[in-house]
Amino acid sequence: MDEFSFIEYLKKKTPLSSRVLIGIGDDAAVLEVDKSKRFVVSTDVIVEDVDFKIKTLSPEKIGRKALAVNLSDIAAMGALPTSFVISIGKPSYITASWLKRFYKGLLALARQHHIVCVGGDFSRSKEFFANVTIFGEALPRQMVKRSGAKPGDWIAVTGVLGGSLLKHHHDFTPRIREGLFLVKYAKPTAMIDISDGLVQDLSHILKASGVGAVLELDKIPVSRDAKKISRGNKEKAFASALSGGEDFELLFTVSPRRKRRLEKIWQKEFPKVSLKWIGKIEGKAPHISWRRGKGKVVPPKLPRKGFSHF
Amino acid sequence: MDEFSFIEYLKKKTPLSSRVLIGIGDDAAVLEVDKSKRFVVSTDVIVEDVDFKIKTLSPEKIGRKALAVNLSDIAAMGALPTSFVISIGKPSYITASWLKRFYKGLLALARQHHIVCVGGDFSRSKEFFANVTIFGEALPRQMVKRSGAKPGDWIAVTGVLGGSLLKHHHDFTPRIREGLFLVKYAKPTAMIDISDGLVQDLSHILKASGVGAVLELDKIPVSRDAKKISRGNKEKAFASALSGGEDFELLFTVSPRRKRRLEKIWQKEFPKVSLKWIGKIEGKAPHISWRRGKGKVVPPKLPRKGFSHF
Repeated sequence: MDEFSFIEYLKKKTPLSSRVLIGIGDDAAVLEVDKSKRFVVSTDVIVEDVDFKIKTLSPEKIGRKALAVNLSDIAAMGALPTSFVISIGKPSYITASWLKRFYKGLLALARQHHIVCVGGDFSRSKEFFANVTIFGEALPRQMVKRSGAKPGDWIAVTGVLGGSLLKHHHDFTPRIREGLFLVKYAKPTAMIDISDGLVQDLSHILKASGVGAVLELDKIPVSRDAKKISRGNKEKAFASALSGGEDFELLFTVSPRRKRRLEKIWQKEFPKVSLKWIGKIEGKAPHISWRRGKGKVVPPKLPRKGFSHF
Repeated sequence: MDEFSFIEYLKKKTPLSSRVLIGIGDDAAVLEVDKSKRFVVSTDVIVEDVDFKIKTLSPEKIGRKALAVNLSDIAAMGALPTSFVISIGKPSYITASWLKRFYKGLLALARQHHIVCVGGDFSRSKEFFANVTIFGEALPRQMVKRSGAKPGDWIAVTGVLGGSLLKHHHDFTPRIREGLFLVKYAKPTAMIDISDGLVQDLSHILKASGVGAVLELDKIPVSRDAKKISRGNKEKAFASALSGGEDFELLFTVSPRRKRRLEKIWQKEFPKVSLKWIGKIEGKAPHISWRRGKGKVVPPKLPRKGFSHF
């Protein structure tokens, strides 16, 4: 039983209530607080030696990452983050001064996004871990699930992909502004942040929406870092862009009409963030097929199916 | 630097916003969602070998405890719990069937309180841990902080104290109903749940309120389990009731007028839960003095000052 089938198992065990609009299995949960407002909640834990190494990453950057991965989930809902709580597992080798530097990095990112820490918990532990639960707000109709993609929709991705392990995974900018802009002006039918790798996260959208996808091999935005860590091996760089994970870019689908509109306004609003149209939603069976120009091609080889925590 | 001074340090570093009514340093944070409603948030992590042992406690009971400690925090605010998210750190020796039993215990308690799981996260880890962030609702004037105790107020505690390690710490009933009843009918001036031990948790109220307390030695409700684990040693049983921790009872203060009213209605509403008046708020300097009858006595010896996670 892997992580995703366990989540499916939990989903069946967990009834929704009338106040829970989105529960287990999306980037964030959405609660109805009153008729005019939605409360968005997401939780993410980062663990020493799984998500980072104490010896090679500064405490400031680890603190920044603990919050950034959560901000990325809020971005994927098209919501505005407001506050968060944090639990810390503290092994004996973590000093108070290390912990202060951890908070320095974390609170600096919090200030940039105008969000505040409202509480937390500490425990002793064998390895360092930090669990952030983040809160955001959204208006009732400005909120994107994973499950709304429809045949004919275009698939887009922000930024460039792959090679994240080189440095991007700990200094990326969560796409909060982009997410808010998209829900307002492009009404994505589905959206997710890329944490497990493009192919795996797209398959989450496809499964949730009950649709398939055709991707254009030459349209995938492969990052310089992906090329760098692959040392000239194009196939490896490509595999990193498709399944490396921790890109924290937004992957979303929009109707053809919205696509034309978005193309006109995106670059002006975000001159430094590329937007690539990488394929289309097609058919009703969750699958991904690949095309180069007009011809079908065999699917690219991937070293592993993204990242599983089980 | 201990846990509590670190929390003080964080509090100074963390500005409140106009939407955050209670931030770091209470049992739960309180956010304003609109003028008529308050959103209450609390987070607690339990860690293997710190809060429980896998070998001696069943997965169902560990799951129950992960949620119960959070419910206790919501109870201490006098709020109504609604939903929660949970992050799991899963070492390789934890099997899927163990995890299912963990969720069975957790979700059974959730159903009893009519609350739902709305999301979560998984990670690999070296030891098992579970972090629950719980959400609740409260009306604007029905919410208790730690900081409202005033000279002349009576100090009360629900249930009996001490000996929690014997079994109470993993099968206690969170005082949700009692907390809601108290805010409605007794308007406590301050309230906290006893997780670190009576003396330490009372001192949190005293510090936050800027007041002192006089406690009546003979009024402390020492549990049978405290006597049992102390094997007839009265002083030890008493120390366990004062500082053992994990009692998860409610400790609160009320005005003399409210005390008289509460005495009349408590036992009828909660025939199986004792309510003891253990002392009074006195003076403006945070301190605890002890009395037996009318005479002052030396403070009882405590083995340690409750429980610190640092």
